[in-house]
Amino acid sequence: MKKICVLGSTGSIGRQTLDVVKTHPQLYEIVALSAHQNVELLSHQIDGFKPTVVAVTSKDSAAELRKKTGKGLSVLTGKGGLVELIESTDADIIMNGLVGSVGLNSTIAAIQSNKILALANKESMVVGGDLVKKELEKSNATIIPVDSEHSAIFQCMIGEDPQDLKKIILTGSGGPFRGRSGGDLDNVTVEEALAHPRWNMGNKISIDSATLMNKGLEVIEAHYLFGVNYDQIEVVIHPQSIIHSMVEFKDGSIKAHLGQTDMRIPIQYALSYPHRLELPLPGLDFAELRSLTFETPDMVNFPCLKYAFWAGREGRTYPAVLNAANEEVVTAFLQERLRFRLIPKIIAKILNAHNPIKIESTDDLMVVEKWARQETNKLILESVR
Amino acid sequence: MKKICVLGSTGSIGRQTLDVVKTHPQLYEIVALSAHQNVELLSHQIDGFKPTVVAVTSKDSAAELRKKTGKGLSVLTGKGGLVELIESTDADIIMNGLVGSVGLNSTIAAIQSNKILALANKESMVVGGDLVKKELEKSNATIIPVDSEHSAIFQCMIGEDPQDLKKIILTGSGGPFRGRSGGDLDNVTVEEALAHPRWNMGNKISIDSATLMNKGLEVIEAHYLFGVNYDQIEVVIHPQSIIHSMVEFKDGSIKAHLGQTDMRIPIQYALSYPHRLELPLPGLDFAELRSLTFETPDMVNFPCLKYAFWAGREGRTYPAVLNAANEEVVTAFLQERLRFRLIPKIIAKILNAHNPIKIESTDDLMVVEKWARQETNKLILESVR
Repeated sequence: MKKICVLGSTGSIGRQTLDVVKTHPQLYEIVALSAHQNVELLSHQIDGFKPTVVAVTSKDSAAELRKKTGKGLSVLTGKGGLVELIESTDADIIMNGLVGSVGLNSTIAAIQSNKILALANKESMVVGGDLVKKELEKSNATIIPVDSEHSAIFQCMIGEDPQDLKKIILTGSGGPFRGRSGGDLDNVTVEEALAHPRWNMGNKISIDSATLMNKGLEVIEAHYLFGVNYDQIEVVIHPQSIIHSMVEFKDGSIKAHLGQTDMRIPIQYALSYPHRLELPLPGLDFAELRSLTFETPDMVNFPCLKYAFWAGREGRTYPAVLNAANEEVVTAFLQERLRFRLIPKIIAKILNAHNPIKIESTDDLMVVEKWARQETNKLILESVR
Repeated sequence: MKKICVLGSTGSIGRQTLDVVKTHPQLYEIVALSAHQNVELLSHQIDGFKPTVVAVTSKDSAAELRKKTGKGLSVLTGKGGLVELIESTDADIIMNGLVGSVGLNSTIAAIQSNKILALANKESMVVGGDLVKKELEKSNATIIPVDSEHSAIFQCMIGEDPQDLKKIILTGSGGPFRGRSGGDLDNVTVEEALAHPRWNMGNKISIDSATLMNKGLEVIEAHYLFGVNYDQIEVVIHPQSIIHSMVEFKDGSIKAHLGQTDMRIPIQYALSYPHRLELPLPGLDFAELRSLTFETPDMVNFPCLKYAFWAGREGRTYPAVLNAANEEVVTAFLQERLRFRLIPKIIAKILNAHNPIKIESTDDLMVVEKWARQETNKLILESVR
């Protein structure tokens, strides 16, 4: 019986993680949950899965939750609530399903607690990749990626010597606006941007897919997770999303991971690794699929991917700034405070304005992120004037 | 330094094996070679690679070879020459690049000698699969498949639990006559049939590709190599031959092996396993490939694949009879004694006429194969009357 802690249990990854746990009650037990503020859903999850400890962001949410649930439950809250949850839980696996760089402290706490970290929160690797690697060296923790692309690469590397890896080929669907250009992108709505053609995902990642920033963040994540340099990472647009990513070895062999576009595959794999469990999905019918297609990513109309490569190569605090600026512009776009086309423009301005420093601690990151968020919001405000 | 013995060194697989060995002189040494009768090429290979023992089929070839080479070389010949070669050599790896069921004795001898068997001779698994499995159980030998499809599957299973395997998806190009039907197939020439669209292969396997019998033999080989039943093997036509085959696991994950259509990839892997070595091939450019397509195999116009599934499922001596009949009709077609369209018709008649027995020894197989070859040749003769 493996004990599981799910961070972000009311989000897309969190809910699907609980789905997987529910189908294997003899193997998995939920011991801890966290949510931002969806107390309604969280209390349902508490009823169903009986964790012993939960965390929510605000004191109001905690009070509301305590009213709804019994007395046996410990409810943590506040800034340090998540870290306290991770440090106090006896979970074997921490599923980090948080959204945004707010997930970094949890990633580091899970590593410091020598847990298995199922990592869906790519922003923590983007923002704190160097710090995370340093912590990993001192720890017995293991990171199992949950992003479908990184899970694909991780699975393709099973039984292989990392020394033999020549190149990572990250595939991406191209998002809902693939093929559009210039003026076609001026007036896209939030609704259009959220309508991802292949994957059922949360709001933030759906917008990131529409701008190709998601692929850019994945490039930086892959750099840190698999120890490859940026010249060894290629992005290929593959609209059908059947091939979830590929690895090329030095003998010319390429291994690919394929499957239905269902996040339960990588989520379950992260829980069951190194084993596999039944997942009753319909198999792929290749003759029915007929064709898998590939294109070069359009970095002219979707320059966020280019900026991410650039920020990754520059290193230091550039990835954190890229991410912080992106989080702010995505929030503004979702709240209809910013036009889609301005997303990359603002990010580029922030990157240009940034004076990078070497990261020694999460405090360094916080200072830089705060600056980036403030400057980004100034530009967002200016854009509506 | 690994010592290598190459059976069938003057054939397509043999020559490419020597190419691979030549590029890694610090890792591999040729200690034994065999050829059917191409004494000219064999003597060149002997000059280049300095084996200590060789085998040729006929005494005449042996005499000719002795004249061309120095006295230090031991030249074996006759029916038992290959087995003697295998039993006497100190090779670590036997590359079985023979063509046809004549390779079975060598496969068994390599297993009995506890060698690593790099198996390109699929017919030995088709004809003697049950015997080979029995010998494997008593031996420390390892079989590393060299067929690109089976090498792909083998590589996809590295680090995976065989229990998790749900299905094998064998891909095939469909051969040079894909899309043709009925009368279009009546007058195809040997030259057309040899012009395989993707792979550079020997004559026999090229004709087998044109009839889809090659895929059928691979189905039976996969059954024995990977311990799957026939319902777990699916054949998909994939004209670009970029995906060399796939494996589906019980969690819905599919792993595929992709690469250039260059037999040196699986040949080198069989020699270097469990490691990989550099092979300076151009990488795949997916955006340039643009599209990978898939179709259901056409078993109406290319029924050999259907017959192979049938023979495999029936088991006993049916696969041996299928293979023996096929070897005879392919030889007749290559010698322009038989029309292409009659290849499956004659094989079907032989399968229908066969009374299967349980195989206890290679002697049982020989009797059955002899019968099948005789009956097949009668039908070939009748067809030209």
